[in-house]
Amino acid sequence: MLTSSSTKRDFLAVEDRPHDEIEALLRLAARVKAGEIRGGLEGRILAMVFLDPSLRTRTSFEAGMYLHGGTALTIEPGKGSWPFETARGIVMDGDRVEHAIEAAGVLGRYADFVALRAFPRGTSWGEARGDALLRIFADHCEAPIVNLESARRHPCQELGDLQTLRERIDAPAGRRFALTWAWHPKALPTAVPVSAALAAARCGMELVIARPAGFDLDPEDMDTIRALATERGGTVAVVDQLDEAVRGADVVYAKSWGALAHFGDPASESALRAPLRDWRITKRAMEATRGGAGIFLHCLPVRRNVEVDDAVLDGPWSAVIDQAENRLHAQRALLLTLAAETPGALKVRTNR
Amino acid sequence: MLTSSSTKRDFLAVEDRPHDEIEALLRLAARVKAGEIRGGLEGRILAMVFLDPSLRTRTSFEAGMYLHGGTALTIEPGKGSWPFETARGIVMDGDRVEHAIEAAGVLGRYADFVALRAFPRGTSWGEARGDALLRIFADHCEAPIVNLESARRHPCQELGDLQTLRERIDAPAGRRFALTWAWHPKALPTAVPVSAALAAARCGMELVIARPAGFDLDPEDMDTIRALATERGGTVAVVDQLDEAVRGADVVYAKSWGALAHFGDPASESALRAPLRDWRITKRAMEATRGGAGIFLHCLPVRRNVEVDDAVLDGPWSAVIDQAENRLHAQRALLLTLAAETPGALKVRTNR
Amino acid sequence: MLTSSSTKRDFLAVEDRPHDEIEALLRLAARVKAGEIRGGLEGRILAMVFLDPSLRTRTSFEAGMYLHGGTALTIEPGKGSWPFETARGIVMDGDRVEHAIEAAGVLGRYADFVALRAFPRGTSWGEARGDALLRIFADHCEAPIVNLESARRHPCQELGDLQTLRERIDAPAGRRFALTWAWHPKALPTAVPVSAALAAARCGMELVIARPAGFDLDPEDMDTIRALATERGGTVAVVDQLDEAVRGADVVYAKSWGALAHFGDPASESALRAPLRDWRITKRAMEATRGGAGIFLHCLPVRRNVEVDDAVLDGPWSAVIDQAENRLHAQRALLLTLAAETPGALKVRTNR
Repeated sequence: MLTSSSTKRDFLAVEDRPHDEIEALLRLAARVKAGEIRGGLEGRILAMVFLDPSLRTRTSFEAGMYLHGGTALTIEPGKGSWPFETARGIVMDGDRVEHAIEAAGVLGRYADFVALRAFPRGTSWGEARGDALLRIFADHCEAPIVNLESARRHPCQELGDLQTLRERIDAPAGRRFALTWAWHPKALPTAVPVSAALAAARCGMELVIARPAGFDLDPEDMDTIRALATERGGTVAVVDQLDEAVRGADVVYAKSWGALAHFGDPASESALRAPLRDWRITKRAMEATRGGAGIFLHCLPVRRNVEVDDAVLDGPWSAVIDQAENRLHAQRALLLTLAAETPGALKVRTNR
Repeated sequence: MLTSSSTKRDFLAVEDRPHDEIEALLRLAARVKAGEIRGGLEGRILAMVFLDPSLRTRTSFEAGMYLHGGTALTIEPGKGSWPFETARGIVMDGDRVEHAIEAAGVLGRYADFVALRAFPRGTSWGEARGDALLRIFADHCEAPIVNLESARRHPCQELGDLQTLRERIDAPAGRRFALTWAWHPKALPTAVPVSAALAAARCGMELVIARPAGFDLDPEDMDTIRALATERGGTVAVVDQLDEAVRGADVVYAKSWGALAHFGDPASESALRAPLRDWRITKRAMEATRGGAGIFLHCLPVRRNVEVDDAVLDGPWSAVIDQAENRLHAQRALLLTLAAETPGALKVRTNR
Repeated sequence: MLTSSSTKRDFLAVEDRPHDEIEALLRLAARVKAGEIRGGLEGRILAMVFLDPSLRTRTSFEAGMYLHGGTALTIEPGKGSWPFETARGIVMDGDRVEHAIEAAGVLGRYADFVALRAFPRGTSWGEARGDALLRIFADHCEAPIVNLESARRHPCQELGDLQTLRERIDAPAGRRFALTWAWHPKALPTAVPVSAALAAARCGMELVIARPAGFDLDPEDMDTIRALATERGGTVAVVDQLDEAVRGADVVYAKSWGALAHFGDPASESALRAPLRDWRITKRAMEATRGGAGIFLHCLPVRRNVEVDDAVLDGPWSAVIDQAENRLHAQRALLLTLAAETPGALKVRTNR
């Protein structure tokens, strides 16, 4: 085992850290955004591994490292790099030329932080929800791991969303946060809706999740959301109607996701989703928010006139660009926090 | 609308700026090349979006940002990032998961400058010449946009070519610049020949464009070239014979391009081009230049022994490597100029 | 010819430099690893061209440039950049839009060092072993060329391996180094085994190469290995049995490679390789090393339970992560050495 788990702190899920640490991180994010923090990442390297596409995540982390004196490296296994095996004990005589165990070990020697994006993979949700690749990186990489979206969580999105909620909603506790499922031509992962719900729960909001029958989130994740809401003085409701959720809401957070019971069976999942194209945020929905002044959030990328109408994205409700910008600032605060927790690896390292 | 167009200055075409600003930029480029300018881009980020391949453009901008203290991010939509939709009002239920409106908006928050390469796209030249994606970026990105080659212009190539002409030709006004069409197995875009012609026109040169029947440049672009030539004291002629253009020329600039009337109809365009393989710059052509000492220019990449013979590229006439090097220096001057016009975005930005 | 070969020193093979220079470089690598060297690459740019995949090479060079104040650019011809032609005198009317001559010339103007990875290509070993692309870059690029693995050598791996041997083996002269062929589903290049053997030879070790009949390395490369071993006081033996090589060894270096006589004929090569799956390093093999305490090395990526068993990689013998880390430090020393030999190109360059 290469892991020295006693001395590193991964960032796999926001709720892995105590609430006061997250509060401190968000206060730092606000200062970062205000331009009050310079430097802090000099000589530091972030290695990012992307098994799935990214626009915001990659560019905002690259920008964030640079703005504080560090740098970011990007690896795309299977595109310019070697594809990774994740199974334990396997005889690797197929297409995959490198095991994630070695990739994680090596990157932990080249970088101060190693970040990984790996969407759910496998033939069943039971398999995918285990986040095998992320676990291998956490176990076999000496550097702290940052989760850039796994099957279960998108904690960097969650940090940015927390920053946006704090900026936009005075005293968010008790205010209504509508997380609304939306139709989409593909079965998307559930990490973002779970993380968005966790952000609302952390703010002590009245969280209402609207989703069609068959599109419940993972039960263990729902338990985590409910526990955090209770701890923070908020509530969680699950409803069947989009209209019911958005009525009087302060925040409408739209997101599509696939039916977990049909994970790995695209044909039956698609049939379940097919009649649900009306699950779309319209101007009328936003006019039904509190005073018609609720804000519209989405993690992006968003399909216009599929998940949400042009009239909403181009109207006064949309905060999606501010929300995306906050990815940058919240992640800068995260990186500064991780750097403060991690002694500069490479420059003081001698042979073991 | 996210655009604050009153405070940003895009760089979509060289002729959008007054002549004295271009003169100042070229004087700065000469000083940059001489090693007289250090720094100037500290804390600055350039985000580059490539929908089409690049060697020189990407590496020279990355090098240029670094050499003055900044950094560059590269995004390739559809390869590691999400492909962009550009149609307005469309129901996005097809293959494209992100609209350029959001991509432009977000990148404008992460970067100080956003650059875009998008070759002509569409089923007709009438559609392609509108440069839809570039227009969306100009409209929806808060940061200045740099055109890295669109359907209509390659202004960074034009700046580099201007620098090369000033270095190589004493008093270029009145000297002969032969822009010669060349055969190529594919129908290439017209942005480079238009920009090369504009560079010659700006220098007040005797511009002679040699192209076969059916290969005229866009009429509006020709009007722009002629107007600039007149303003700068030069002339423009269009001829049918390569030999006629190169005779006595000081500069031979070879470039292939497709027949615009057949844009979107490769079979008929290819049939028109097929008999024209003799349109190629030979040693004999270069010996026919003024005193046999004309210089050979090409934007690169160039197909050896198809557009131009080995004897020319490996002979005393070729200036193509110097020309490519000047991309770097002219762009450094452009970035320094844009930085001087643009307050440091990220570090002083507070929530809107 | 663009090359000013009198003033640049390429790094194509370790043995191209005198032994005392390599000794000095390895002493510098140890100081780099100990954190004693800061800076030294300020304002310097490394351009890396990858025709084949990479994880360690790309990220370790990017990290190395950054850690000393420089930066690295990565180009992947055919993926986001133009594919290169390498044939001389060819009429380029096929798929390749740029000749390597121009690519090398241009990159030499943008970067202080140009590095290239190009695995063997061609229909015969006689063709592939010429390393045509690397030769073009050496001839046509004004900047020093670094070989990131060609058909014949992987000199950066060799430097890292030398550093690992010096760290792990007190007084390596006369100690036993077993280079053992391993089965693999594909016919891999021979650059790494040749470079590993050269590292052992340079250390004056007792080098034993175990390979099945038909899997001899290139005869000229074997001559180079033997000459270096003789010069450094070591020995070279070639045996048919893996067990014989590892018995009493201090180092077991496993690597698969293809049968050169069948290069370009995958079917016959594969038939030769098929019955050889037992060529795999097991726990039993490591227990047969000197005192059962030999170290296991591999350049990575490695196929678990194909080239080597989990029990070895996860056991006390494996030094593969340390070995990969040394790529970083040895290359930092190489870059610092090249920088000291090369005047800062871009900033003092004026027009030629």
